[in-house]
Amino acid sequence: MHVLGLDIGGTKTAVIVGDDRGRVHNRLAFPTKPQRGFESTFDELCEQAGKAIQTAKVQNRPPEVISVSIGGPLDVEQGIILSPPNLPGWDAIPLKALLEQRLALPCHIEHDGNAGALAEWFFGAARGARHVIFLTMGTGFGGGLILNGRLYRGACDMAGEVGHVRFAHEGPVAYGKAGSWEAFCSGTGIVRLAAHLFPGRWGEDRCTVPLLADAARNGDEDARAVFATVGVYLGQGLAMLVDTLNPEVIVIGSLAVRLGDLVLAPAREVVNKEALPRAAERCRIVPAALGEQIGDVASLCAAIASHNGGDPP
Amino acid sequence: MHVLGLDIGGTKTAVIVGDDRGRVHNRLAFPTKPQRGFESTFDELCEQAGKAIQTAKVQNRPPEVISVSIGGPLDVEQGIILSPPNLPGWDAIPLKALLEQRLALPCHIEHDGNAGALAEWFFGAARGARHVIFLTMGTGFGGGLILNGRLYRGACDMAGEVGHVRFAHEGPVAYGKAGSWEAFCSGTGIVRLAAHLFPGRWGEDRCTVPLLADAARNGDEDARAVFATVGVYLGQGLAMLVDTLNPEVIVIGSLAVRLGDLVLAPAREVVNKEALPRAAERCRIVPAALGEQIGDVASLCAAIASHNGGDPP
Repeated sequence: MHVLGLDIGGTKTAVIVGDDRGRVHNRLAFPTKPQRGFESTFDELCEQAGKAIQTAKVQNRPPEVISVSIGGPLDVEQGIILSPPNLPGWDAIPLKALLEQRLALPCHIEHDGNAGALAEWFFGAARGARHVIFLTMGTGFGGGLILNGRLYRGACDMAGEVGHVRFAHEGPVAYGKAGSWEAFCSGTGIVRLAAHLFPGRWGEDRCTVPLLADAARNGDEDARAVFATVGVYLGQGLAMLVDTLNPEVIVIGSLAVRLGDLVLAPAREVVNKEALPRAAERCRIVPAALGEQIGDVASLCAAIASHNGGDPP
Repeated sequence: MHVLGLDIGGTKTAVIVGDDRGRVHNRLAFPTKPQRGFESTFDELCEQAGKAIQTAKVQNRPPEVISVSIGGPLDVEQGIILSPPNLPGWDAIPLKALLEQRLALPCHIEHDGNAGALAEWFFGAARGARHVIFLTMGTGFGGGLILNGRLYRGACDMAGEVGHVRFAHEGPVAYGKAGSWEAFCSGTGIVRLAAHLFPGRWGEDRCTVPLLADAARNGDEDARAVFATVGVYLGQGLAMLVDTLNPEVIVIGSLAVRLGDLVLAPAREVVNKEALPRAAERCRIVPAALGEQIGDVASLCAAIASHNGGDPP
């Protein structure tokens, strides 16, 4: 089966043609520019999708289904987008119905954290596991849960919003909340933390995570201190998840892939100290095996999951 | 179907004869006295169970199955008890096999937090829900999770150990961990908190939760301050669970039943402030409907769940 995947983010949108084995055949991307309003973004999305479908047809890979990965909150079953913070103006947008109408293909929509969890469970570091936690750890900090061998969405598709959990009463702010997990461990949070710890050196305007990572890898003590702090907060959140959900594996995307043991080593240390030993010993904590490709593969997974009744292909 | 339920706690053990509708027909209890060693406790358990079975037979209610509720960690499938902190010396005890041999009935064993979750899901405040969090909030602080309409045990039967999650880097200690949820919100924790906040008035040796509750209900400002603090920490943990698991209902046992809005009102306020609005609005936070009977009913639920393939009866 061939799938048209749409990975709709606040910064860029990718249009993928792939298949139900998680292979990506074609990809194009454009800036989402959500400030121009939903209608304009949606028109460009459909135009680019139309092009991708034409190319795929010529290559004898006509997509049978549309699969969307997008930030929450949303109503998965109805396919309605409910004012995600990274897409201002997308208020109660019936995206599934609009895409089905415009592109004349059935459409499945999934929360991006859930789509990432499915991608790593189907094709990545969590293959074969029944209890999986996936964390995005990118610009934002979200998650997706596979529990008892099933995607777990909760009562109204809000499960996995772990970035919103608060770990300290003071500290950087994310999503209006000081000291939340996202505020400490997202890309945005890390840059703020560096500026907070070393204001003279890393003002928010002249700091990026790759710049900090290079410095840390070159032995810079300040940069190492930033990541050590991030790792401790990461570990504190992981310990909470290990004690609460006793997962087999926690897969962390994006920044964990790029930063590796700069943050994962201190995080694992905190988990081993903080969480109950039997649960901590049972849980692997690993970067996403799909690496930088995870967003593309994740965009295909709403349709793949539906095709397989929720089971891995 | 009639069930012999064993509710094995660190202080007392209850032997129940009940049925698969959650009705309790007979009950006897004895002090567990775990310090005398496993063998002696086990002998008394079997003796009392034997008596209960005889009585039940005379009343034409012969139990067909044994059902145990006991503190973790344990291996549910094998029925092995793995050194629970409230039962010193119960190290790798094959309780299921021992009980089956001695009492000549099949036996099912469940973690007491999970058994409580099943009891409220089958017969209490969570009937009809698919996503349920149950919290014990007694002498200790544990939990059980019903997710996607199934008991969720995790990778090695450790899921739901939320009492171990840390919310502050300082504060009272429980299970060797300062500032854990259990340290703030268990019965033991509440007494310690009162002694900590008002040392001259409520030393740990002369304070109990019922005494504090009476004072608070009579308008005592100090006692109200203790419960307000407990409620805030309770709410902080509940907000974490709401953001992570998006449950339909959180049912809280024991102290929440006895204290009611003294702790639940401030807790709900914190959840509404801390958790994501869509998830917070969706979630009821209620005391256990089975009230003081929950331990007895829970003791029956491992067998009832097994009898029904995991579904509610």
